[in-house]
Amino acid sequence: GNALLSSYGTTIFEVMSRLSEEHGAINLGQGFPDDRGPADVLQTAADALLQGWNQYPSMMGTPDLRQALAAHAGRFYGLDVDWKTETMVTSGATEALTACLLGLINPGDEVVLFQPMYDSYLPIVRLAGGVPRFVSLKAPDWSFSRADLEAAFSPRTKLVLINDPLNPAAKVFDRAELELIAEFVQRHDAFAVCDEVYEHIVFDGRRHIPLMTLPGMRDRCLKIGSAGKTFSLTGWKVGYVTAAPHLLQPVAKAHQFLTFTTPPNLQAAVAYGLGKEEGYFTGLAAGLQAKRDRLAAGLASVGFEVLPSAGTYFVAADIGRFGFDGDDQAFCRWLVEEAKVAAIPVSAFFVENAPTGVVRFCFSKRDEVLDEAIARLRNRF
Amino acid sequence: GNALLSSYGTTIFEVMSRLSEEHGAINLGQGFPDDRGPADVLQTAADALLQGWNQYPSMMGTPDLRQALAAHAGRFYGLDVDWKTETMVTSGATEALTACLLGLINPGDEVVLFQPMYDSYLPIVRLAGGVPRFVSLKAPDWSFSRADLEAAFSPRTKLVLINDPLNPAAKVFDRAELELIAEFVQRHDAFAVCDEVYEHIVFDGRRHIPLMTLPGMRDRCLKIGSAGKTFSLTGWKVGYVTAAPHLLQPVAKAHQFLTFTTPPNLQAAVAYGLGKEEGYFTGLAAGLQAKRDRLAAGLASVGFEVLPSAGTYFVAADIGRFGFDGDDQAFCRWLVEEAKVAAIPVSAFFVENAPTGVVRFCFSKRDEVLDEAIARLRNRF
Ligand SMILES: CSCCC(=O)C(=O)O
Ligand SMILES: CSCCC(=O)C(=O)O
Repeated sequence: GNALLSSYGTTIFEVMSRLSEEHGAINLGQGFPDDRGPADVLQTAADALLQGWNQYPSMMGTPDLRQALAAHAGRFYGLDVDWKTETMVTSGATEALTACLLGLINPGDEVVLFQPMYDSYLPIVRLAGGVPRFVSLKAPDWSFSRADLEAAFSPRTKLVLINDPLNPAAKVFDRAELELIAEFVQRHDAFAVCDEVYEHIVFDGRRHIPLMTLPGMRDRCLKIGSAGKTFSLTGWKVGYVTAAPHLLQPVAKAHQFLTFTTPPNLQAAVAYGLGKEEGYFTGLAAGLQAKRDRLAAGLASVGFEVLPSAGTYFVAADIGRFGFDGDDQAFCRWLVEEAKVAAIPVSAFFVENAPTGVVRFCFSKRDEVLDEAIARLRNRF
Repeated sequence: GNALLSSYGTTIFEVMSRLSEEHGAINLGQGFPDDRGPADVLQTAADALLQGWNQYPSMMGTPDLRQALAAHAGRFYGLDVDWKTETMVTSGATEALTACLLGLINPGDEVVLFQPMYDSYLPIVRLAGGVPRFVSLKAPDWSFSRADLEAAFSPRTKLVLINDPLNPAAKVFDRAELELIAEFVQRHDAFAVCDEVYEHIVFDGRRHIPLMTLPGMRDRCLKIGSAGKTFSLTGWKVGYVTAAPHLLQPVAKAHQFLTFTTPPNLQAAVAYGLGKEEGYFTGLAAGLQAKRDRLAAGLASVGFEVLPSAGTYFVAADIGRFGFDGDDQAFCRWLVEEAKVAAIPVSAFFVENAPTGVVRFCFSKRDEVLDEAIARLRNRF
């Protein structure tokens, strides 16, 4: 078939996880933690399952979780969010993204995408009839210029999709960069879909700045978050969208035809989790920062040129030392088959202008797993 | 915005549930049970949550659930299904349907739809670029003829979408009807997406016949099921697709961009549930049949002309006695506001040729709830 969505390959994350299992590799490819997640959040979900409502909740999400989302936006970002008209729960951030794009893009609308980009963005933009315009960030610093935006925005720009903190580049956009994007969004009377699933996973004392908090951007942004990432429970598939009513309403129309709603016991637990004390959130980032340092040091010690990681679960590294003619895909194939360590080729996040020889490692794993991965690499290099 | 998916209204089920809450009505609109669901299935889900894996499972579903799906297809329908290539788990049957349609329809393909039809079908067919061709079933017997199919099928027919047992008509297709559909599907070298979420909810000694089991249809059908319906846990949003590999592969490509995967603890519990003894499944149908009889008798006693219900959670009824000029929407508005009982206007399931004056009631409720609804109606009529 040539149906729009089936013309793509299987997502690189699934492909590498399958290969990893097949070869008995340590899986530093697909981004997920390997710990149990917060015990109190798990217990809340179990209690709600056994004592609570297990039938359809409202398609917008449970009132508890929606109120918690509004409170979270106020507490962390000073945003004043009306839970009844400005929050929606989805079955994971992937569904949130798909609902935003299918709800807002009209055929022929231009959509500005930053490369590297998560691999579901482009297929859904195309399904909606959108015309992609790319801004290519370049390793090692993943920066962009005013001229890059001038070239990508046009009178037909409907929206820009920004992932901040950025997977796989582990870049956290700074205020000046966000201001530049905000200027273009406003000048073109456009919107921004902000994939901020790693909002609580930023390092070295940085703070994540939602694009929505910049002047003039409050009612132009759809902010997407993920309980999977914020509570280290990626299998739960609980995501959320916060946006002004005129943006959220069309997105809810798309959501109702994608999944309609999300398990209420998981929503109850995420509502509880979002109310946890500040220390939980800072502890999450601190724990992952230590793991970043552990893996980065190990990778450097075996010969990788490690790129900076300011946030996310990931650190990217240059394979220049190892040959492979800069072919990150060939390197990753060799790595999983021979060294028994799975990683993700960063070129999978590009349709053009991909950097050569950069691979992504996931460090959200137990220390002994990270150490064993480095030991396997050391044996090989 | 005029984006394809946002041009539709909010689903009638959500609209009526909101109105029901607002007016303190008894909600016989949206289809969900109001009991707790099977205690052992709930406990299995809680145990898996507290002791098991809460990170991304495979995008195709957990091996346990996929094996259980294959075993279920063998046990109930004599189908020989390869779990590794012919089963996929989705975040509810709505997502399964959307993935099937987006994965298989190429722009310009014709899709045969039976009216009445569930309200997500048409928006997704149109999003995929499909051209709908309707077969309109007519109350009270919801039958169709060879000539109806001749008029709807064409050389451009890519697939037919059939919901059996049929919501809201409560019709169970008989073998002769299925044979006629199978003949047309094969003659046009087409496929069938079979929404069989009520497969275990058929009454009066009937047996559900999957279209997939008819001669020549094994590799032309995608069979969709729902744990929500089979285990009375509609909030769980666990659905599944069974299909030959050449059909399932493109559908999996769409699935990965919609939700990617589904909570593993719920998958574990559904795997357990599908293995329950025969008595569970017959008991589910028997319990709902008794509720059907209770509500149907009550509706008749207050003056409705009750249509037959052979399966599903629903019974349709003619409002002829009550006036309203056959306007089922006006009647339902009055019913929820004044009589404080919510129902669904059947015209919401049609784009053309809607019957006049037919409304749908949901009977999957505790007996005292059904009795109170009838008492409220009796007070009004
Ligand atoms: C579809 S799996 C998602 C995993 C992930 O976000 C990543 O590895 O980048
Ligand atoms: C999207 S709510 C689904 C409920 C249902 O199946 C129905 O009421 O017909």
